Amino acid sequence: MNRTVLIVALVAAAAGACLAQETRLEELQNKTILLFTPHPDDDVFGAGGTIALLNRHHNRVFIVIYTNDDKGSYDLEMNSQRLARIRKAEEEVSEGLLGTPQENISWMGYDDGMLEYAPQPKLVEETTAIIRRVRPDVLLSVDPGEWYERWHKTDHRMAAFNTIDAVRAAEFWLYFPNQLLQKNLQPFKVPVMYFFYPSPQEANYWVNIDSVWDLKVDAATKQVSQFEPAVHKYRPDWEPEALARLKDEFRKQHPTKDGHYVEAFRRAKDFVQY
Amino acid sequence: MNRTVLIVALVAAAAGACLAQETRLEELQNKTILLFTPHPDDDVFGAGGTIALLNRHHNRVFIVIYTNDDKGSYDLEMNSQRLARIRKAEEEVSEGLLGTPQENISWMGYDDGMLEYAPQPKLVEETTAIIRRVRPDVLLSVDPGEWYERWHKTDHRMAAFNTIDAVRAAEFWLYFPNQLLQKNLQPFKVPVMYFFYPSPQEANYWVNIDSVWDLKVDAATKQVSQFEPAVHKYRPDWEPEALARLKDEFRKQHPTKDGHYVEAFRRAKDFVQY
Amino acid sequence: MNRTVLIVALVAAAAGACLAQETRLEELQNKTILLFTPHPDDDVFGAGGTIALLNRHHNRVFIVIYTNDDKGSYDLEMNSQRLARIRKAEEEVSEGLLGTPQENISWMGYDDGMLEYAPQPKLVEETTAIIRRVRPDVLLSVDPGEWYERWHKTDHRMAAFNTIDAVRAAEFWLYFPNQLLQKNLQPFKVPVMYFFYPSPQEANYWVNIDSVWDLKVDAATKQVSQFEPAVHKYRPDWEPEALARLKDEFRKQHPTKDGHYVEAFRRAKDFVQY
Amino acid sequence: MNRTVLIVALVAAAAGACLAQETRLEELQNKTILLFTPHPDDDVFGAGGTIALLNRHHNRVFIVIYTNDDKGSYDLEMNSQRLARIRKAEEEVSEGLLGTPQENISWMGYDDGMLEYAPQPKLVEETTAIIRRVRPDVLLSVDPGEWYERWHKTDHRMAAFNTIDAVRAAEFWLYFPNQLLQKNLQPFKVPVMYFFYPSPQEANYWVNIDSVWDLKVDAATKQVSQFEPAVHKYRPDWEPEALARLKDEFRKQHPTKDGHYVEAFRRAKDFVQY
Amino acid sequence: MNRTVLIVALVAAAAGACLAQETRLEELQNKTILLFTPHPDDDVFGAGGTIALLNRHHNRVFIVIYTNDDKGSYDLEMNSQRLARIRKAEEEVSEGLLGTPQENISWMGYDDGMLEYAPQPKLVEETTAIIRRVRPDVLLSVDPGEWYERWHKTDHRMAAFNTIDAVRAAEFWLYFPNQLLQKNLQPFKVPVMYFFYPSPQEANYWVNIDSVWDLKVDAATKQVSQFEPAVHKYRPDWEPEALARLKDEFRKQHPTKDGHYVEAFRRAKDFVQY
Amino acid sequence: MNRTVLIVALVAAAAGACLAQETRLEELQNKTILLFTPHPDDDVFGAGGTIALLNRHHNRVFIVIYTNDDKGSYDLEMNSQRLARIRKAEEEVSEGLLGTPQENISWMGYDDGMLEYAPQPKLVEETTAIIRRVRPDVLLSVDPGEWYERWHKTDHRMAAFNTIDAVRAAEFWLYFPNQLLQKNLQPFKVPVMYFFYPSPQEANYWVNIDSVWDLKVDAATKQVSQFEPAVHKYRPDWEPEALARLKDEFRKQHPTKDGHYVEAFRRAKDFVQY
Repeated sequence: MNRTVLIVALVAAAAGACLAQETRLEELQNKTILLFTPHPDDDVFGAGGTIALLNRHHNRVFIVIYTNDDKGSYDLEMNSQRLARIRKAEEEVSEGLLGTPQENISWMGYDDGMLEYAPQPKLVEETTAIIRRVRPDVLLSVDPGEWYERWHKTDHRMAAFNTIDAVRAAEFWLYFPNQLLQKNLQPFKVPVMYFFYPSPQEANYWVNIDSVWDLKVDAATKQVSQFEPAVHKYRPDWEPEALARLKDEFRKQHPTKDGHYVEAFRRAKDFVQY
Repeated sequence: MNRTVLIVALVAAAAGACLAQETRLEELQNKTILLFTPHPDDDVFGAGGTIALLNRHHNRVFIVIYTNDDKGSYDLEMNSQRLARIRKAEEEVSEGLLGTPQENISWMGYDDGMLEYAPQPKLVEETTAIIRRVRPDVLLSVDPGEWYERWHKTDHRMAAFNTIDAVRAAEFWLYFPNQLLQKNLQPFKVPVMYFFYPSPQEANYWVNIDSVWDLKVDAATKQVSQFEPAVHKYRPDWEPEALARLKDEFRKQHPTKDGHYVEAFRRAKDFVQY
Repeated sequence: MNRTVLIVALVAAAAGACLAQETRLEELQNKTILLFTPHPDDDVFGAGGTIALLNRHHNRVFIVIYTNDDKGSYDLEMNSQRLARIRKAEEEVSEGLLGTPQENISWMGYDDGMLEYAPQPKLVEETTAIIRRVRPDVLLSVDPGEWYERWHKTDHRMAAFNTIDAVRAAEFWLYFPNQLLQKNLQPFKVPVMYFFYPSPQEANYWVNIDSVWDLKVDAATKQVSQFEPAVHKYRPDWEPEALARLKDEFRKQHPTKDGHYVEAFRRAKDFVQY
Repeated sequence: MNRTVLIVALVAAAAGACLAQETRLEELQNKTILLFTPHPDDDVFGAGGTIALLNRHHNRVFIVIYTNDDKGSYDLEMNSQRLARIRKAEEEVSEGLLGTPQENISWMGYDDGMLEYAPQPKLVEETTAIIRRVRPDVLLSVDPGEWYERWHKTDHRMAAFNTIDAVRAAEFWLYFPNQLLQKNLQPFKVPVMYFFYPSPQEANYWVNIDSVWDLKVDAATKQVSQFEPAVHKYRPDWEPEALARLKDEFRKQHPTKDGHYVEAFRRAKDFVQY
Repeated sequence: MNRTVLIVALVAAAAGACLAQETRLEELQNKTILLFTPHPDDDVFGAGGTIALLNRHHNRVFIVIYTNDDKGSYDLEMNSQRLARIRKAEEEVSEGLLGTPQENISWMGYDDGMLEYAPQPKLVEETTAIIRRVRPDVLLSVDPGEWYERWHKTDHRMAAFNTIDAVRAAEFWLYFPNQLLQKNLQPFKVPVMYFFYPSPQEANYWVNIDSVWDLKVDAATKQVSQFEPAVHKYRPDWEPEALARLKDEFRKQHPTKDGHYVEAFRRAKDFVQY
Repeated sequence: MNRTVLIVALVAAAAGACLAQETRLEELQNKTILLFTPHPDDDVFGAGGTIALLNRHHNRVFIVIYTNDDKGSYDLEMNSQRLARIRKAEEEVSEGLLGTPQENISWMGYDDGMLEYAPQPKLVEETTAIIRRVRPDVLLSVDPGEWYERWHKTDHRMAAFNTIDAVRAAEFWLYFPNQLLQKNLQPFKVPVMYFFYPSPQEANYWVNIDSVWDLKVDAATKQVSQFEPAVHKYRPDWEPEALARLKDEFRKQHPTKDGHYVEAFRRAKDFVQY
């Protein structure tokens, strides 16, 4: 028998916890939410509607972005410092539309596409400190579950594994004990996690985002540099026609469930006992 | 065509090997068994019954533990040196109940939760030396096959991959040739492997442990520090009531097959030709 | 919604691309083909027939081999320098039979079984430079998709992930910008990829190799040192009988589809937009 | 010709700078001082008198401590978490006596004796951020110049090289540009540096500490755990006799110059032009 | 006794070598010269006159530059890609004035200030391959001997140690044997080395550069971006007055010996016997 | 004041230690001696006479060799596995002549010339375990003090620093506490160290080896593969004439002092208190 299963059962028994009665993610109020994203745009594409709902319901949403996203351009006139500036500005506008205040957005400062080559214990240590400082009621993070993501996107793989490793470490003070002893960061157990970009087979939670649909579309399209034609030749704005076409396509491609726009998650909890 | 398949076929043809007639794991006698476990307790939870049967049948069982398991406590009065001492003592009692002599238990000495950050080529080299020294008839190891393990448990991921990489390296003397040239360790081909904690879809071997069921339960519950209430506030023993409740839960949760308590494995062999 | 999907759709719409009408891999002519293989033999086993067809059709086929394959021998009289020499000579004969000129074969020079321990950012950087220099119309690479490969073969895992990471990096000049600025290597987007050794569930493309079947068998069997008896006690040639038996087995084991010998691939394209 | 010399000459010429007229270190007022120390006690031993003078003169003194100093005990009852707590408390008392407010002391959190094994680019990056944030008028740091330190003390070697590397990096914004782009940390050129623990041959600056001599002695002896008998068997306080003997020895051994107690430094500036 | 000394003596005895009669560096003709420099300008500052003489005497001079020098600017409008372009163009002009053809200049492509963090075995391997390919009669390299360089300049430290490590490795084919086995690079013993930027105490060789003095000055001043005012606010050319002042200062500061402009070196040979 | 000096003084005072009366190294009896050498021959060249005297006086001498020395050959017919075998056999013969039993020689198994690239914390950890296990009365090690060694010999640099770092770590059980907790290795303070190959300026101890001179010469010349002609074309023995010439040269070059053959050391103790 896998001990984890046993312990979860014991704990569940002790707590008399009843999953069915927990408040739905999109109905939480006055909670602290912490979201980790590999790049400044995956948060919006993967969970933008949910973020909008959480902000609307007076939660404190914190966005932590692993990388500066400073490489994804075909434009030979572009340079990395300028692209990092552009990405940062776009992200602040996008998240602003979703209701996240600018001071709640923080950047870990890793280079785009290079997260896997960062010194891993240090990366986990930093992330653990963030969790212990923010102490979220709910944590959102990228999921490498989707086959496509897992295989083709190195930053996504790394961000996903690193976040979950930090969740486990945050719980036990003997991981990185100097965080407690020298910086007075108390250990913290993350109560529940939702992973965006899940594989279809593993998605187990869907948030209806109909009521914030326009907000999400607007927020997504503010990331101008991520779309053509700005990827090939940077421009800070849209031709109205191109924008209309993008929004149209966005609408057609976005996942739905039972006739509603939804964002899919893999929900997990109680899983890191040792 | 995948060459591996071809070679296996050729070898099988040459040897006239007949898988169906091989002795069952739980019926082996006078063999050398080598088990790798990420932490001092996964061996007991994942394969404790099988270990008891192997010891009962006069096999020499060697347990190698990757980490010291010195972080998994919520107790702010705990410290890592003390926890390592506790874990070691508990493991010796547990394995002792299963019949493994204390001198057959060895510790690689890595820090809990940090195995993935150990220098990997060195880790494989050490593990290869262990295999070449022990020269097991059967090797048991953790499997990261279970989705849950693979995704949420860094030490399990690493221990699993590292063991299998070392199995391949052990076979060919040109891997780490100094082990032969300077330490006189001959290359060694592991005949067969059983992985515990497999994913349900990939499990292909089950050992009936009914006859050692009580031993397994006793051994598991000797790992007091791994369970509440000792995780939150360490104590070296059980309230009788709490112990009874744990055993009861253990019984309910333990996997069964056709009405018997079983331990599941993924069995593999003949797979590392280059 | 996953932005990748969206963008692919947009691009496809813009280009009016029609996958159904693309030229089949085995019918390409006068194209540049770049194949990455972890060891000198996986190319032949995994895609030898396809290589033969591509050469026959006047394509320029380039083979890049990650490792020197200098460890896979049970022969205590062997040494790594000699084995590397043997493997290199065998590979040149094998690929020569398939029509690949010797000057098109290049070796990255990593040690067998140690690719995973190479400094990863450097490995991606080197591979990116190769792609930007060769500028292939089609890229072939090993796939770690097959469960067996993924789990048991460290060099295959690493070669597969590294190649795909380099494909993404090659596209954007701000990855390793010194390649453009100091060595004048222009960024390059790989149009389409075929992965050999795919998992059966993910294979989506099959090449009929009936017309080059004998060539493939000959090429494969020129890799004498990879088969018994030469693995145990090296000899440079075959006993006629042993060779006949191998070819016979090869024929029986080789994948077929609808009564034809085939090589299976996972085909992918348009996937690295972020 | 070494370009550095040239540039310094040019700059000096342009500025009409006159070293002779600069304010002495011990007479500075209302300045920002940043001191890096490998362990919590090297600051006091190497520059405690100077720190006391600087605080007395209304400068803002910031102490940054690389490691937690959690290993230097012979006491088998000690553990690393407890020792880190003790060292931190002692350091706060010591620096408090010298006039440094507790909130000006910060800990980088590296493990004692392990600084050399920390990921070096990350270490430089962190240190660079500290310099850009504090923006000191004067920087003090350990010098690995003394033969003895250089050869026998790994943390001292590393702290010394790392600080100076960070000084150079802090000056040019293109080192770690994300610090400017994402965290708004402006580049900063350190005007002048004083290195404590210099080699006698390279010391070029001496601060007379007669007026704070008693303070320094008191501060040093507050680091009880660093001296016998507390190294062998921890106790938080002194036998009066032992304390008296220590102070006496301290007095005899402390460097003097022309009949005064002094602290020796290697002073350097204007040296990091590329 | 140090074996090296012994062997050198034996070899010298056997060869009847007479150092006194060797051709002076500045009088060599038709030889192959290989120079390693950490940045594109240290070659000119440290050995520009000597390079001019070597080119004038029909030697083939190859310049290898470790880094792209893309960080040394105070200009917030600058970016790393642009600075790398500028540095490269300046270096080509500088070396062109000294007679080195552009195709003889090659760039290893490491980032400025980050050489120490490159994967070191790979760096040595690459450098070894360069030496085995060029097969120089004379090798020039930076010396970390000068106290100032050794202590304050990370790229200089690393470039110096790495070059000398590669010299030793190049000599014995069993270092990086794949260079011989797969790329046909024969081992090569560097006959003699001259290190520029030596410490004054260790300099043992001086080249009179009076006859190429103007060339050196011109070449040095073509590196406009390395001097003020272009460091603070980039401009591609000089105010005539500023240029005159720089040249004047250059003249005053440049080392002389017995009334002649000289470049100082530490000369070494025969030192890498194992 | 440097605390180390203070503490040494305190300790010395407490112990009433009198350096002048300590037994000379070459007169020790029945002690445990531990010598670390980077390659199998540096022990003989640097301290062979001293080793012979120590063995003659019934001390237990243990030799630990960092690397396999498998690269120093110009012979293209040589290979690394064969060279490692040769070096090992030669070392055993050499040390045997000096009186060291074969079972006292152990090999850490690192590759020649690659010690600097080994994972350093692991290297220190292994070395610390050796010291804690052997518990020497005297430790001998290579010194990187000689300018020539320090600069040109990477393995020597690394072996020297690593040994001294391990000496410090061995003393405090909280370095690598698992060595105590899991393997029962008690901490150990090395009483005194002698470094061979010191720089002339720093040598402070000389051992007269006249009485074992012939033994040292014989032992040194048994390392046939380290000398010409066997470096260029391996042969296991000497032409009598070549051997005579070598011995003659050896005699002429060997250091002497006051008309005696001596081995020079840098002696140090009491230095790792922090």
